[in-house]
Amino acid sequence: MDINFLFFEDFESLDIFGPIEILARIDNVKMHYVSINGGLIKSRQGYEIITEGVSTINSQGVLVIPGGQGTRTLIDDKKFISELKELCLNAEYVLSICTGSALLAKAGLLDNHNATSNKKAFEWVKSISNSVNWIRKARWVADDKFYTSSGVSAGMDMSLGFVSDMFGVEKAEQIADDIEYVWNRNRNASNET
Amino acid sequence: MDINFLFFEDFESLDIFGPIEILARIDNVKMHYVSINGGLIKSRQGYEIITEGVSTINSQGVLVIPGGQGTRTLIDDKKFISELKELCLNAEYVLSICTGSALLAKAGLLDNHNATSNKKAFEWVKSISNSVNWIRKARWVADDKFYTSSGVSAGMDMSLGFVSDMFGVEKAEQIADDIEYVWNRNRNASNET
Repeated sequence: MDINFLFFEDFESLDIFGPIEILARIDNVKMHYVSINGGLIKSRQGYEIITEGVSTINSQGVLVIPGGQGTRTLIDDKKFISELKELCLNAEYVLSICTGSALLAKAGLLDNHNATSNKKAFEWVKSISNSVNWIRKARWVADDKFYTSSGVSAGMDMSLGFVSDMFGVEKAEQIADDIEYVWNRNRNASNET
Repeated sequence: MDINFLFFEDFESLDIFGPIEILARIDNVKMHYVSINGGLIKSRQGYEIITEGVSTINSQGVLVIPGGQGTRTLIDDKKFISELKELCLNAEYVLSICTGSALLAKAGLLDNHNATSNKKAFEWVKSISNSVNWIRKARWVADDKFYTSSGVSAGMDMSLGFVSDMFGVEKAEQIADDIEYVWNRNRNASNET
């Protein structure tokens, strides 16, 4: 299984490194760290990571899309949204974390689908598309090939949910145990108070 | 406050990016991503990140040390252990995650201190030094200026504990809420079954 992690300027760290930690523990997985054009990408937290260009990857694998401040500018970047749409159409599964679902919504990929997003940015995300059935009270939502999670740390819970759906709950529990993580396994319950 | 995150080859992703996500949310913090010699450092999960050399930083800040497979070779690297010891002696606080505490123990920094480590590697870590009071049933331990955590995801709980100790529990709760994280706030209870 190829898993492609899509980086962009001002991505949020835990959005993507939480899922990286968990999904790397799937047997025989191949991890790819990519961006639209490849090269150095700077995080919201200021460090830079090396990425491959998306043209070099097998886009039929799993695609993982973080959120973060960077989504606020990318939402108006027609070229990015168009390229993201193509990548998502090719992918077998698409997992977004936090405001990553705003990018999917902008591309029209979530039309008539259930989805969720960051609770702190929910009104903004909802404003991107009213063709999506936005579910506020969800930690993550799986609908067709799209998995969308709530903010930042919820990406870890969704990743374990994805592992559970694909490979069985025992595998997800084993990974959570290996990283001493307390899995919030109820996808329908956000921790919003 | 300067916070220096120490990278080395084969570090474990969530060990360090969990704390990065949390500690970056302290007001007026300056984040530095460093390694002994600077340059590109490759994670256990295969991506590469750019680091500054430690000679460029203010080593009197907070030092954060991840664990991971890389600690198994660094434990026998006398030059690294010596340089780590100097960095730790200069630092105001030292936070280690997972098997990062094995490196501190090897440097003699934890002698006669309480400390903990990854539950899956606990016997190995204990074997590094019998001058440390190793506490198995702890999610994290704070003793003098040393904070040591259990495996991988426990670094996030410890980081929130550090924020709580330094800036008050309300600040830690606010950060946990902002990233939708369910904080395991009992430092004395590991989730080992």
